[in-house]
Amino acid sequence: MSAEFDRFREQYKQTLTSGLFVIDRVVSYLCRSHGKGLRPVLALLCARLGDNGVSDSAIKAAVIVELLHEATLVHDDVVDESAQRRGFPSLSSRFKNKVSVLFGDYMLASVLSETLEARDLKWLDILAETSRRLAKGELVQAARARKLDMDETDYLTMIGDKTAALFNASCRLGGLTGGLADPQIAALGIYGENLGIAFQIKDDMLDLFGNGARLGKPTGGDLKERKLTLPLLSALSKVNKREARRIKARIKRGVKRPEIKMITNFIQDNGGDVYATEVMNKHASEAVRALEALPETPIRTKLEELGEFVVKRGK
Amino acid sequence: MSAEFDRFREQYKQTLTSGLFVIDRVVSYLCRSHGKGLRPVLALLCARLGDNGVSDSAIKAAVIVELLHEATLVHDDVVDESAQRRGFPSLSSRFKNKVSVLFGDYMLASVLSETLEARDLKWLDILAETSRRLAKGELVQAARARKLDMDETDYLTMIGDKTAALFNASCRLGGLTGGLADPQIAALGIYGENLGIAFQIKDDMLDLFGNGARLGKPTGGDLKERKLTLPLLSALSKVNKREARRIKARIKRGVKRPEIKMITNFIQDNGGDVYATEVMNKHASEAVRALEALPETPIRTKLEELGEFVVKRGK
Repeated sequence: MSAEFDRFREQYKQTLTSGLFVIDRVVSYLCRSHGKGLRPVLALLCARLGDNGVSDSAIKAAVIVELLHEATLVHDDVVDESAQRRGFPSLSSRFKNKVSVLFGDYMLASVLSETLEARDLKWLDILAETSRRLAKGELVQAARARKLDMDETDYLTMIGDKTAALFNASCRLGGLTGGLADPQIAALGIYGENLGIAFQIKDDMLDLFGNGARLGKPTGGDLKERKLTLPLLSALSKVNKREARRIKARIKRGVKRPEIKMITNFIQDNGGDVYATEVMNKHASEAVRALEALPETPIRTKLEELGEFVVKRGK
Repeated sequence: MSAEFDRFREQYKQTLTSGLFVIDRVVSYLCRSHGKGLRPVLALLCARLGDNGVSDSAIKAAVIVELLHEATLVHDDVVDESAQRRGFPSLSSRFKNKVSVLFGDYMLASVLSETLEARDLKWLDILAETSRRLAKGELVQAARARKLDMDETDYLTMIGDKTAALFNASCRLGGLTGGLADPQIAALGIYGENLGIAFQIKDDMLDLFGNGARLGKPTGGDLKERKLTLPLLSALSKVNKREARRIKARIKRGVKRPEIKMITNFIQDNGGDVYATEVMNKHASEAVRALEALPETPIRTKLEELGEFVVKRGK
C-alpha cells in the first residue's frame, strides 16, 4: 500500500494548495504532521476489493475522507486552544483561533469541490449524510459535556455520529470507486460503522487507562474536559444514585491528576473497563462478520486484521 | 413578495430544526433575529423572472443562500466574541465559542443536504464555487488585517469573494429555478456580482461615515479590527509613504474614538470617500446594465431599484 499511500499524501497537499500565501502557509503547517491515516487506508483497501483497484478516483476518495477528518480536527482545536490558555489568551492565540475556524471552512469547501469532481450524486449523498452526522455528533458531545447527562445509548449514538460515520463513508466511497456492487458496498458500510465504534471506545479507554508516554499526551484529558465515556458511564450505572452524583459533581468542578486516579480506580472497582471492553469487542466482531458478504481475498483478510488492530493498539 | 418571503422564513427554520434539544435551542435563538434577507429576496426575484415563478425549488434556493450567509456570520461571531471579552473570557463565552463553531458546521452540512435535494449538479457547482470563494475571502481578510498590507485590487478581489460571490449565487440559483436560459442566468450572475461589490463598499463606507444610532452599532468597527477598506486605501494612496506608514502604525497599535475621528478626517481630506463612492456607483451601474439581457418586466425594474437601494441606504 505504501506507493498508493504516497500518491494519496501528495494529492492531499495539492488539493489544499491554492497559490495564496495566506492559505499555503497554513497548508504547509498542517501537512508537516499527520495521523495514522486510517480513513484513507480504509478507502484504498476497500477500492482494492473491486475490479477497478486503486484508480485516481480511489485516491480522490481517500483525499476527501482525510480532508473531512482534518477539517473536524482543525475546528476541534479552536476549542482546545482556548482551554490551554484559559484566562490569558494572547493576541496570537486569538489570531490562530480565527484562522483555525476559517481554514476549517476552507477545507470543508475543498471537500465539496473534490467530491463534486466525481460528477456522481452517490458520492455527494455519502458526503452530505456524513457531514451532517459529524456536526450533530460534535454538537451533542459539546452540550452533554456541560450537563454531564448521558447514558450508554446516547454515548453510542454520539460516537456513531462523530467517529463511525466517517469510517463508514471511507469504506463505502472506496468500494464505490473499486466498482463493487451495491450490497457489497452496504456491507462495507456496516463494517466501517462498527469498526469506527470499536475504534472510538478504544480511544476513550486509552484516554483513561493508556500509557501517557506512548500516547504522546497525558491521560485523563476527557475527564478534564468533562466528557463521560463508556467505562465511566458503565461504572456510574452500577452504583447508587448518591454515589453517582458525588462522582459527577467532582468531575463538574474540574479534576486534576489525583482526582483522575481516584476516578479510574472507581471505574475499575465497578467493572467499567471490563464492560467497555466487551462492548468494543462486540462491535469489532460485528465489523468482521459484515465482511462475509465479500469474497475471501488477501485484502479482505487485511480488513479483518484492521478490526483486530483497532482494539489491540496501545496508541 | 411578502407571502413568498414568509414561506421562505418558515422553510428556513424547518430546515435547521432537528428534534434534538441541543440543536433546536440554538436554532430558536438564531431565528429570533434576522437581517435584511437580501440574498433570499434576490433568489426569489430572479426566480420570478422565469416562467416557473416562485416554486418550491425557488424557496429552497432562498433557504440555501441564507443558510450559507448565516453560517458565515455564526463563524465570524466566534472571532468577535473573543474580541469583546479580550483577556477575560468567561467559561460561558468559551462554551458559546465552541457551540458557534460546531453549529456553523452543522449549518454548512445542512446547506449541502438541501442543495443535494435538487438532484442537479448545476446547483452543486454553484454551491462549491461559492463556498470556496467565501472561505478564501474570509481567510484573506483575516490575514491582511494582521499585516495591513492591501491595495485596491486585493480589496476588490477580497470583497468579491467574501460578499459578491453569494449575491451572484443567489441570483443564479433563483434564475435556475425560474427556468431561465443559460445566458440569462449568466447575466444575473454578473448583476449579482456587481451588486454585491457595491453593497460591500457601501457597508464599509457606512462603518466609517454612517450614523451609529441608525446602524445600531458604533461606527469605526473596521478600524478597531484593523480592516483597511476602500475609502482609507484610496486616501493612503494619495499621500506620501511616510504619512501612510504613520497612519497604518496608528491603526496597528489599536484605535479608539478620538483616533477614529482623526482617521475619518484624513480620509475625507484626501478624497477617499468621494473615490469609494465613484467605484461603488460604477459597480451598481454595471449591475443594472447586466439586466439588459433580460426582458423588461416589473421584476426587472425591481432588481434595478435594488441596485439603487444598495448604494443609497443609511443602514
